[in-house]
Amino acid sequence: MPVISKRAQKMPASPVRKLVPFSLKAKEKGIKVYHLNIGQPDIETPQTAIDAIKNIDLKIFEYALSEGNIEYRTALKTYYHTLGFTDLTTDNFIVTNGGSEALNFAISTLCDEGDEVIIPEPYYANYNGFTQTFNVNVVAIPSSIDTGFALPEMAEFEKKITPKTKAIVLCNPGNPTGYLYTREELQQLAEIALKHDIVIISDEVYREYAYDGKTPVSMLEFPELKENCIIIDSESKRYSMCGARIGCAVTRSQKIHDAMILFAQARLSPVLLGQIAATAAHVNDTKYILSVREEYTKRRNLLVDLLNEIPGVICPKPKGAFYCVAELPVKDTDVFAQWLLENFQDNNETVMVAPMSGFYSNPELGKKQVRIAYVLNETDLRRSAELLKIALEEYNK
Amino acid sequence: MPVISKRAQKMPASPVRKLVPFSLKAKEKGIKVYHLNIGQPDIETPQTAIDAIKNIDLKIFEYALSEGNIEYRTALKTYYHTLGFTDLTTDNFIVTNGGSEALNFAISTLCDEGDEVIIPEPYYANYNGFTQTFNVNVVAIPSSIDTGFALPEMAEFEKKITPKTKAIVLCNPGNPTGYLYTREELQQLAEIALKHDIVIISDEVYREYAYDGKTPVSMLEFPELKENCIIIDSESKRYSMCGARIGCAVTRSQKIHDAMILFAQARLSPVLLGQIAATAAHVNDTKYILSVREEYTKRRNLLVDLLNEIPGVICPKPKGAFYCVAELPVKDTDVFAQWLLENFQDNNETVMVAPMSGFYSNPELGKKQVRIAYVLNETDLRRSAELLKIALEEYNK
Repeated sequence: MPVISKRAQKMPASPVRKLVPFSLKAKEKGIKVYHLNIGQPDIETPQTAIDAIKNIDLKIFEYALSEGNIEYRTALKTYYHTLGFTDLTTDNFIVTNGGSEALNFAISTLCDEGDEVIIPEPYYANYNGFTQTFNVNVVAIPSSIDTGFALPEMAEFEKKITPKTKAIVLCNPGNPTGYLYTREELQQLAEIALKHDIVIISDEVYREYAYDGKTPVSMLEFPELKENCIIIDSESKRYSMCGARIGCAVTRSQKIHDAMILFAQARLSPVLLGQIAATAAHVNDTKYILSVREEYTKRRNLLVDLLNEIPGVICPKPKGAFYCVAELPVKDTDVFAQWLLENFQDNNETVMVAPMSGFYSNPELGKKQVRIAYVLNETDLRRSAELLKIALEEYNK
Repeated sequence: MPVISKRAQKMPASPVRKLVPFSLKAKEKGIKVYHLNIGQPDIETPQTAIDAIKNIDLKIFEYALSEGNIEYRTALKTYYHTLGFTDLTTDNFIVTNGGSEALNFAISTLCDEGDEVIIPEPYYANYNGFTQTFNVNVVAIPSSIDTGFALPEMAEFEKKITPKTKAIVLCNPGNPTGYLYTREELQQLAEIALKHDIVIISDEVYREYAYDGKTPVSMLEFPELKENCIIIDSESKRYSMCGARIGCAVTRSQKIHDAMILFAQARLSPVLLGQIAATAAHVNDTKYILSVREEYTKRRNLLVDLLNEIPGVICPKPKGAFYCVAELPVKDTDVFAQWLLENFQDNNETVMVAPMSGFYSNPELGKKQVRIAYVLNETDLRRSAELLKIALEEYNK
C-alpha cells in the first residue's frame, strides 16, 4: 500500500468531523439536532444575488480570468472605496474560491517548509489545515477567556519572532472569539511587522458583523504596511453565500501580488457563477447588511445572556462575527459534545456544538470550552440554550 | 520588503501569460485575434445545466459537504456505472473545484518536498505548477512528435523510479498531444506501479473526446490498482463549463480517500452552484456528447489537414482531446507567437497560439512547437490556418 505524505499524515481533522457520524445517527433515531457547530447561517442570501443567477444570460459557463473577472473586481474596488481605501484599483485584488483559497495562496506565497506564522489563539481551526498543507508551523500567542480573549501585551508577539517567522495571522473580528482588535493593538502589530519585515495576513471576512456601534479597524488603514499586508476577504459570511465560494486576497504589494497570481494561474480560474452572484449582491446592499447586523445583534444578546444564566457557564460577550466561546462545567468538551449527540435528548431534541480543542495549538487549552455559532433564529437559539442547560444538569449528576 | 517563499519564486508562469499583454495591445489596435491558445471551447454548455441554474430554488447558497453533496456524487456514481465501474459508490468520489483542485489534493496527499513524480512529456503545463506548489520534482519521460508522441518503451519509466518517486501522472487522452494510451501500455504501467508500490494519477478529463471510434482506456479498468490509483475528472471539458469549477478525484483506496478528505475539509466546501449545474448536465447527455464529439472530429480533421498543407509544418493527427501539437518552420515559437500578436496582421486579423516550451520539463524541447486548440468553429479554424500560413511566409522571408 503506498505511503501517504508526511504532510497528509499530520493534517488535522476538522474539530467537529468526528462528531458528524454521531449527529447522523441521532437524526436516524428521529432526534432533531440544533446545529450551533458551524458558521452556516440561516440568513437568506440577498435576493439580488439569487436573481442574478436566475437571470443568467450565458450560453457557455466559460473560464473566468485567473485573477477574477473585471466586473467583479470592479465591484470589489467600489466596495473598498466606500470603506475609505480609495487608492485601491482592480489590480489589487485576486479573486479566490472562498477566503480559504486566499489563505492558501497567502501561506504558499510567503512560507516554505519549516517556516513559522504567529497566530493569537484560540484561532479559526482551519488555520491549522492551511499551514499544515505546506508544513508551516503555527506559533500561538495565548489569550484567555477570563479577560474576554483580550490580546496580551504586544511584546509577547515580538518575543515569538524568529528568523523563520514569515507572517502574523489575525482574524478580525475574530472567529471563534468575536474579539475586535483595537486601533492601538493593530498599530503596535504594524510596527512589529515593519521592524521585522514580516507580513500581516489579516482575515477580515466578518468585517460587516461588528456590534454595539463599533466598526472593525482594517489592516488597510496602515498604509505603511504597503509591502507587508495581505487582506483575506470573502462574500460567504457577508452575504450568507458560503457555497458560492467567492473570496479574495487584497494587497498593495506588487511583489506579493505577482507571486500570488502564479498560484491563481496554476488553478486556472476562480468560479464564474459565484462572481456573478457576488457582483450583484454588492449593489445597494446597505439595507441588507444593516438588517442582518441587527439580527445577529439580537441573537448574540439573547444567546450570551441565556448561556451565562446556566450554572457554571462563562461566556464573554463577543463584539463581532457570529460566534461565542463558552466555558462549560465539564472536564472535556470533546466527550461532552459527543454525549450530547449519542446519549442525550429532551423531547427528541439535542444540540451540536464545536469543542474548542481544535481551535488551539495545544488542544488541552480548549478542553473546557465550546464554540457556539449564533446562526439560528431566536426561537431555535432559545431552545438550544435550554437544551444545553438540561443536558449539563443531567451530565453532571 | 518581505521575502517571497522559495516555492513561489520557482512557480512557473502559464505558457501564454507573457503573450497576454501583446494580445490585449493587438485588440486595442483593432485587430481581431483568433484564440487557439487555450482550452476554452466555443461549444455551448448543455441547456440542462443552464436551466438548472436559471431555475434554482434556493433561499441560501449554503456550504456543500466537503466531499461534495450527495446529489452530485450520486450523479457521478451513475455515470461511472455506465462506464462499467459498477463497484464504485458515492464514497469513492471527492468533489473538487475543477480538476485543478483534484490534482492539487492528489499531489499533496502523496508527496512531500523533494519527492518526484514521473510524467511523459510534453505534458499539460500546469502540472509544473501543481508540483512546484509543493516543491515536488517532475521527472519527464520524453516522447517525440516524429512518432506521433507514442510512448517510449515502458522500461524507460522503470529506469526513472527512485525511492523518491511517489506517482506517475498520465493525461489520457493527452493534453497537449491528443495521444491515447493503449491497453497494453496502461497494463505495463499498472504492473510497474504495483511493483514499486507507487500511485498512478490518471487525468481523464478529456475521456469523452476520443475520435475514430476509439474509446479511451480508463485506469479504473485495472482493479489490481485499487490502492494505487487516483483518477482526476472534471466537468469543464465534458460539458464546456470550465467556469463552473467542478471536478473530482476518484479512488478505490480508502487510505488515499481518508487522507485527501482532510485537504477537502480544510477548504470547507466545493462550489455549490457548479454541482447543481453538473448534476443536471449528466441527465440524458448522450445526444449532447455525441454531437460535440462529432463537431470536434470535424474540426480536427479540417485543422490537421490544413496545418500539414503549410510548407514546413508537421502536425500528427491527435486521437483525442481537442488539441494538436504542430512543429513550425521557426527557431523559437515563443518569439514567433509574440510576433504574431505584435507585428503581424492580415486584413486586421491574427492568431494566438501556445508555444510548447512550457509543456516540457526542458523548455528547449518545445522551441519549434506550438499547441493549437481546435475550440473554434470551422470557418474560424479555416481562417486561422490561413493566417498561420501567411504569417509563416512573411516571418521566414
